[in-house]
Amino acid sequence: MARSNIVADLLSEYGNRARALLSQYLPRSEPRRYLYDPVADYPSRGGRAMRPTLCLATTKLFGGNFERALPTAVSIELFHNALLIHDDIEDESDMRRGKPTMHAQWGVPMAVNIGDALTLLSLRPLFDNVRTLGPRLTLRLVSETENMARESAEGQALELGWRLDNRTDITQRDYLEMVLKKTCWLATIHPMRTGALIATQGAVDVAAFVRYGLFVGAAFQIQDDLLNLTGDEKKYGKELGGDLFEGKRTLMLIHLFEQATPSEREKLGHILTIPRQSKTEADVRWIRDRMDSYGSIEHAVRSRDAMSAAAQNELTKITRGLPGSRDKDFLEALATWVVERT
Amino acid sequence: MARSNIVADLLSEYGNRARALLSQYLPRSEPRRYLYDPVADYPSRGGRAMRPTLCLATTKLFGGNFERALPTAVSIELFHNALLIHDDIEDESDMRRGKPTMHAQWGVPMAVNIGDALTLLSLRPLFDNVRTLGPRLTLRLVSETENMARESAEGQALELGWRLDNRTDITQRDYLEMVLKKTCWLATIHPMRTGALIATQGAVDVAAFVRYGLFVGAAFQIQDDLLNLTGDEKKYGKELGGDLFEGKRTLMLIHLFEQATPSEREKLGHILTIPRQSKTEADVRWIRDRMDSYGSIEHAVRSRDAMSAAAQNELTKITRGLPGSRDKDFLEALATWVVERT
Repeated sequence: MARSNIVADLLSEYGNRARALLSQYLPRSEPRRYLYDPVADYPSRGGRAMRPTLCLATTKLFGGNFERALPTAVSIELFHNALLIHDDIEDESDMRRGKPTMHAQWGVPMAVNIGDALTLLSLRPLFDNVRTLGPRLTLRLVSETENMARESAEGQALELGWRLDNRTDITQRDYLEMVLKKTCWLATIHPMRTGALIATQGAVDVAAFVRYGLFVGAAFQIQDDLLNLTGDEKKYGKELGGDLFEGKRTLMLIHLFEQATPSEREKLGHILTIPRQSKTEADVRWIRDRMDSYGSIEHAVRSRDAMSAAAQNELTKITRGLPGSRDKDFLEALATWVVERT
Repeated sequence: MARSNIVADLLSEYGNRARALLSQYLPRSEPRRYLYDPVADYPSRGGRAMRPTLCLATTKLFGGNFERALPTAVSIELFHNALLIHDDIEDESDMRRGKPTMHAQWGVPMAVNIGDALTLLSLRPLFDNVRTLGPRLTLRLVSETENMARESAEGQALELGWRLDNRTDITQRDYLEMVLKKTCWLATIHPMRTGALIATQGAVDVAAFVRYGLFVGAAFQIQDDLLNLTGDEKKYGKELGGDLFEGKRTLMLIHLFEQATPSEREKLGHILTIPRQSKTEADVRWIRDRMDSYGSIEHAVRSRDAMSAAAQNELTKITRGLPGSRDKDFLEALATWVVERT
């Protein structure tokens, strides 16, 4: 089987299993119009299910039982969707998975509350683990979840704060720390750690996943930011160039900070202070032109590929001695897939 | 000791113990400016500490150990503060405890994230219970917390939804259901249930607290809404009459819906569709005048006092056979205190 297929196949196969259980955790009770119908909206828009698949594949990689990891995988996907609702408010995004964002449909007040309710619902499958995994391992998984969520909030705080203070002194090192917190913990590190903990009853060294997760997650985030600049709007499902309008500190923008002349940097700083709604197409095109002339996009592509290669290398350390399996193939192929996806 | 003093004394004594432990749960780590300094803001503004005191008093009422309930009391107070941050966004409130609300200071994007981070932090003391209460009771308390938080989100959804759809067909029964969910679970039912569970190792019938909690919490909420209309702005700490500008469905407004003539009701419906910022003083004064002429405020006062009396009656069922104590006196006095406070 070709490497590119193993990723798509496992995302589909494990993703479908996770979606089937996930739907059972979405209440059909009142208040429906004002809460539980909108709560079910994002999860039903059909994401890639990368996080639950990663959790389930890691459980199987370590010889664990698929069914025992399923509730945790579902919890992670629900939490991810809850965070998307709040992230979309915080980033003032208009579109999500090809449709209007929650707050674009319902207004910010309702969307904040819907996100809070979905966060709570994401804990249900986690607590249900007590029946199959016992109280100690369940509490460990709850504590891992709290830690991951705190890292995510810290990463989000950094990104929002940099924009609020219109910081143009952010370095690539700062950027990687932010991505580790904001993206990698939820996207890769946490799903793998919990998957491994469930397989081994807590007896595995979970620190090893931080490095693999950082490299895969950073490659993933850089690719995500590249797609926002250069992708196909229809495939991508968000408005193209939205990050430039938002003033989001991407690797490309930070590279431009570093490379620009003092006068360009001053102009850049000025454009970034203009509120999203008041920025013109010309403002955004100027930033994009400067990125092109300094090779900021090529720089991001090279960084992304280096992260992908580093991830491959870290994975060999984790999987050394483990028998061959589709799950092992999946994890190896994933590091390449995240940089190739459109 | 006078009854009015026992409430103030226990709020002060138990509240101080809770605040001392609470401060240990506020991180002094990075990112400080963008996250942990603002996270510590609301808890440091000094609320009444009614929720932690209620939890601790109920533990002692059932012969439990104060220290064993302290982390749970702290968790409840932290969660309450987290919810206030999001509630203030959802209600578009400007002031909280005499200072600008979180989103008024930091903008909505930062405030959503700060609220999320404080919600997470509120779980820490709850998880720490595992060392003293063991994993089973800890998981029970976590599950109780999830249930309370879901009730709160459902209540908030109802209130926001009624405003969104500009509903003028809400009945007093709908109102009480909303208050039960939005206010009573967090304000009274949950603190008492968890306090009793800790004292009895989970062996108490927690359903009994729902009625007492509903009556005290409803009296509390009606009094809160009355204070917003008729209170002293400096003492109250929020802008006076803000609920009328917001179009909040209070008992007084619902009573007015029911009493008004068709043409008054139509005018009322029209005023309520005007966005908060565009409503005039004259609009709000007209509503207030109609309330005065139909006795809506007197009706709310009577309902509040009936709730308070019903709470007293429910409490005698809960405390029957338990020995006399300051904690018993506190719970009895509380039902009167909530309607007398300014």
